[in-house]
Amino acid sequence: MEMEKKSSSDSVTIIHNATIVTMDAESRVFRNGGIVIDQDKIKAIGQSPDILAQFSAIAHHCVDLHGQFLLPGFINTHVHTSQQLARGIADDVDLMTWLHHRIWPYESNMTEQDSYISTLLCGIELIHSGVTCFAEAGGQHVSGMARAVEELGLRACLTQSTMDSGEGLPPSWASRTSDDCIQSQKELYQKHHNTADGRIRIWLGIRQIMNSTDRLLLETRDTSRELKTGIHMHVSEIPYENQLVMDTRKVEHGTVSYLEKIDFLQKNLLAAHTVWVNNTEIGFLSRAGVKVSHCPASAMRMLGFAPIKEMLDSGICVSLGTDGAPSNNRMSMVDEMYLTSLINKGREVFANGTTDPTALPSETVLKMATINGAKTVLWDDEIGSIETGKKADLVVVNTNLWSMVPVHDCISSLVYCMRTENIVSVMCNGKWIMKEKKI
Amino acid sequence: MEMEKKSSSDSVTIIHNATIVTMDAESRVFRNGGIVIDQDKIKAIGQSPDILAQFSAIAHHCVDLHGQFLLPGFINTHVHTSQQLARGIADDVDLMTWLHHRIWPYESNMTEQDSYISTLLCGIELIHSGVTCFAEAGGQHVSGMARAVEELGLRACLTQSTMDSGEGLPPSWASRTSDDCIQSQKELYQKHHNTADGRIRIWLGIRQIMNSTDRLLLETRDTSRELKTGIHMHVSEIPYENQLVMDTRKVEHGTVSYLEKIDFLQKNLLAAHTVWVNNTEIGFLSRAGVKVSHCPASAMRMLGFAPIKEMLDSGICVSLGTDGAPSNNRMSMVDEMYLTSLINKGREVFANGTTDPTALPSETVLKMATINGAKTVLWDDEIGSIETGKKADLVVVNTNLWSMVPVHDCISSLVYCMRTENIVSVMCNGKWIMKEKKI
Repeated sequence: MEMEKKSSSDSVTIIHNATIVTMDAESRVFRNGGIVIDQDKIKAIGQSPDILAQFSAIAHHCVDLHGQFLLPGFINTHVHTSQQLARGIADDVDLMTWLHHRIWPYESNMTEQDSYISTLLCGIELIHSGVTCFAEAGGQHVSGMARAVEELGLRACLTQSTMDSGEGLPPSWASRTSDDCIQSQKELYQKHHNTADGRIRIWLGIRQIMNSTDRLLLETRDTSRELKTGIHMHVSEIPYENQLVMDTRKVEHGTVSYLEKIDFLQKNLLAAHTVWVNNTEIGFLSRAGVKVSHCPASAMRMLGFAPIKEMLDSGICVSLGTDGAPSNNRMSMVDEMYLTSLINKGREVFANGTTDPTALPSETVLKMATINGAKTVLWDDEIGSIETGKKADLVVVNTNLWSMVPVHDCISSLVYCMRTENIVSVMCNGKWIMKEKKI
Repeated sequence: MEMEKKSSSDSVTIIHNATIVTMDAESRVFRNGGIVIDQDKIKAIGQSPDILAQFSAIAHHCVDLHGQFLLPGFINTHVHTSQQLARGIADDVDLMTWLHHRIWPYESNMTEQDSYISTLLCGIELIHSGVTCFAEAGGQHVSGMARAVEELGLRACLTQSTMDSGEGLPPSWASRTSDDCIQSQKELYQKHHNTADGRIRIWLGIRQIMNSTDRLLLETRDTSRELKTGIHMHVSEIPYENQLVMDTRKVEHGTVSYLEKIDFLQKNLLAAHTVWVNNTEIGFLSRAGVKVSHCPASAMRMLGFAPIKEMLDSGICVSLGTDGAPSNNRMSMVDEMYLTSLINKGREVFANGTTDPTALPSETVLKMATINGAKTVLWDDEIGSIETGKKADLVVVNTNLWSMVPVHDCISSLVYCMRTENIVSVMCNGKWIMKEKKI
């Protein structure tokens, strides 16, 4: 499949004879497309014959995809990499058992080495599902995660799990002050931000409002402005959370209303889940430019139906996440795309009395997994679509398996029929991190 | 992996060193289990060392599973094999466009050869997801289906799509009388019932109540008693169906109420979908011993939330189906198990205000895909669990892939983590129909 040409350098690759789904602003699809990759960037894109005629002379590698599909890498905007080793420890139990008696005891006993191994295992599963970039939801040992991300060749926004108050915390966590939380995150930023050829960025974390003082919230907001980075936070996950906020923080509805009140909502906030929000709160999120990560599997299992259609209609950038292994338990963006379409069509029964099979059409879902993901992680200047000048983060999909035949519409096939089995190769930052299923 | 012993016959196989999930009445799991297969039947089951000691001398084949899982074959209780070639022709459109402008025109133009090819392609996908038996929901060319099923080595209950009235039918279908419908099904029964080494059975079909006269319903019921076979029918799919039945057939709620009124509900009725039923109707179904096929993907996309928990609680045998490719579009029982658990946990929000992560636990879901499936297709005397004397319909699952590691609870791992990729080999009626991923 690969044809090496004699050269001392190794930097220019042509990929041709591909169906290229660009996810650019015009949603262009090239039926017989080709692209040129120079180092870590996309240098050109066009029809295969044109690309070959223009660039063959300078190419060091030339890959014929034989009609396979080429997509931008998927961006998983909410994942707990530290929880991968805990897959299956909390199935079929209620939410408080899940959190207080299974997940927190597990997480609080992890070492940096455990986190490294867990992130490695998680990353391997994510790469198999076409992920090239993820936003860590917050774990204990960011240095362990960073080591794994560097080795796997992935791109990631890493975050420390941050809490300075609240009920049910393990002893080792309960003693942290707001200052400890901010200080340790600043240190992680100095140590890891923009490392691994620029593939790793450090974000700030807020676990959830029930474990945060106002001081932590506001200092996190200010620190994020100072460091020019994002904030990753679980928002409005369950009715209990909203109720507690109403009772203790004196607002009309819940978490989002309170965050609006204290001027916490801003463009660099990645709000995960965001299930129990009313129309007023959707307005707050939209006006502030907050990004939302929808995690359909985890929501169905434990949280509820997020008003995704309403959020998209109000202009909010909604992307997709797998959440952690004990919540899902499949860590596959391919499955999340399938679920997103199904669940939000079905949710119309809950919202309006009958399903709406036209809700969240496949193109919308594919955007959520790609370009909206890039906007969510504040990285859309470089990733999220196949465009000249962007980083070469790419996925090769074999649509000629029994699971996708026949392909009548390439976009809906990708969203409704594709399985992880169809994903054969993945490139991140110009390097193959999985080739023909081998990592 | 396989060790052949010298023998003139070829009939006895030992499978050992397996985690055997039997799905028998006690839900037994053998951690280091072995079974003996003689011709098409299971001759013995037990601990590996005991099985090897007792049967090695008479075995012609001895398969070491190296700790892989062995399950009963999955039973897909609602699938339109004829629709496989139509995958993707009706994505993201409303239900009436789906039915009248896409699916019926497609189906009514099929030839027997088309149906044969469509069933072959569908069967290949089903086998990859561990299916050994399916119930056809009703297509036009049963002889084409039967040829494909015979060649694939699968087990199936085949059904002709049957309608004698109603709106929007293609011209070639609109002219059929009730007598034509019954007569042609009797002929198919004579020709194909109990063929292919007993793997093929012929059932009677009713497409749906909106396309059935009372005469067709009652003659179908009586014919099923005469032939001692089952009836496969779409029941209470959408609110419009119930409304039409209330308006034209003068009952209080809908299809199930009417079927109860005319004494149509009986033990051999396989009611597909059964989404819009109230508690009274759940009582009717339960008392009559009707079997229900739950198709979660298709329901979420087009129909709504079936009250599966309530049906199971009332003692109804509920099993799982994929529905047809243009409704789903993945034809995988593995994915349907995953969806069943997620969607029915989430449905509690719709029914009771918050999700219930303890609803439909994994063991219930695995039963639905196996032993409940066998009961649904009236075949549980021979299939649906791994028990001495039953047919050898088996699935080998490799749990040592990145997608299932680590396995903390084998049942919940199978339901929440397993993907089609994990299914490596499938045996039906004592013969390997897929071995190491090769069909």
